[in-house]
Amino acid sequence: MRPCEQRVKDALEELRTQVDAWVATANGAGKPYLVPLSFYWNGEVMIVTTARSSRTGRNFVASARARVAIGQTRGNVVVVDARVEEMPIGEAVELEDAYVRATDFDPRPWDAGYTFFRLIPERIQTWRGDDADELREKDVMRDGLFL
Amino acid sequence: MRPCEQRVKDALEELRTQVDAWVATANGAGKPYLVPLSFYWNGEVMIVTTARSSRTGRNFVASARARVAIGQTRGNVVVVDARVEEMPIGEAVELEDAYVRATDFDPRPWDAGYTFFRLIPERIQTWRGDDADELREKDVMRDGLFL
Repeated sequence: MRPCEQRVKDALEELRTQVDAWVATANGAGKPYLVPLSFYWNGEVMIVTTARSSRTGRNFVASARARVAIGQTRGNVVVVDARVEEMPIGEAVELEDAYVRATDFDPRPWDAGYTFFRLIPERIQTWRGDDADELREKDVMRDGLFL
Repeated sequence: MRPCEQRVKDALEELRTQVDAWVATANGAGKPYLVPLSFYWNGEVMIVTTARSSRTGRNFVASARARVAIGQTRGNVVVVDARVEEMPIGEAVELEDAYVRATDFDPRPWDAGYTFFRLIPERIQTWRGDDADELREKDVMRDGLFL
């Protein structure tokens, strides 16, 4: 089992270098939704974009919650429970530009109702699928603070 | 873009040969949950197991809904929207045995409150992440019927 400091460092490295995530959201009736989205990590928050009218967009707006998984189920996994805030196009152009550079996807020239969202981590879990000890203690962030 | 018949065949092959899935559930307050679970596909339903008192177990029981992703975000993806039914230990021993053979995990000898669940597909989507046409029309099952 990696020491906590190492696990924090490795989780941040995954967030910095990965682009694809599985993003789980839900509506108020308990119906889950799950899609792959590209993201950009600026060191503090994950930036994603989707149509405001998409299922994920509607769930983001309605519940302001997401749970996001990065990595392979049996590899180096990082899971983030996040508070979600909309970041309308034009509000934070530098972050938008950084998102586009990281993901090679720019929704801004379209007229398709896209908007950005900030996913603000409250809890981060990380583990290696082949390390039974890490499966017992996954948390590296709680209440927005690294352990 | 693969013809629909081929996409159905490929999706079934993924379900038959894969073991790991990302399983999204939610509680009634719109809070999503997401964990990796091993599964066994018997040709009609996915069988999973978890503690009845775990977050996923409680969400299964409360909302009877799951959305499950198999595969890599940019590879061959299969996503299943499912109705969930509990299958208490001892109710369907042949299915339990098949689950244990497929996943190499047997919760039955433990006394840890595990139970099985049947995930009954209502909608199945599948696509290849590098095929823009497949991203436009993902469904291969709707209302429990293959297209």
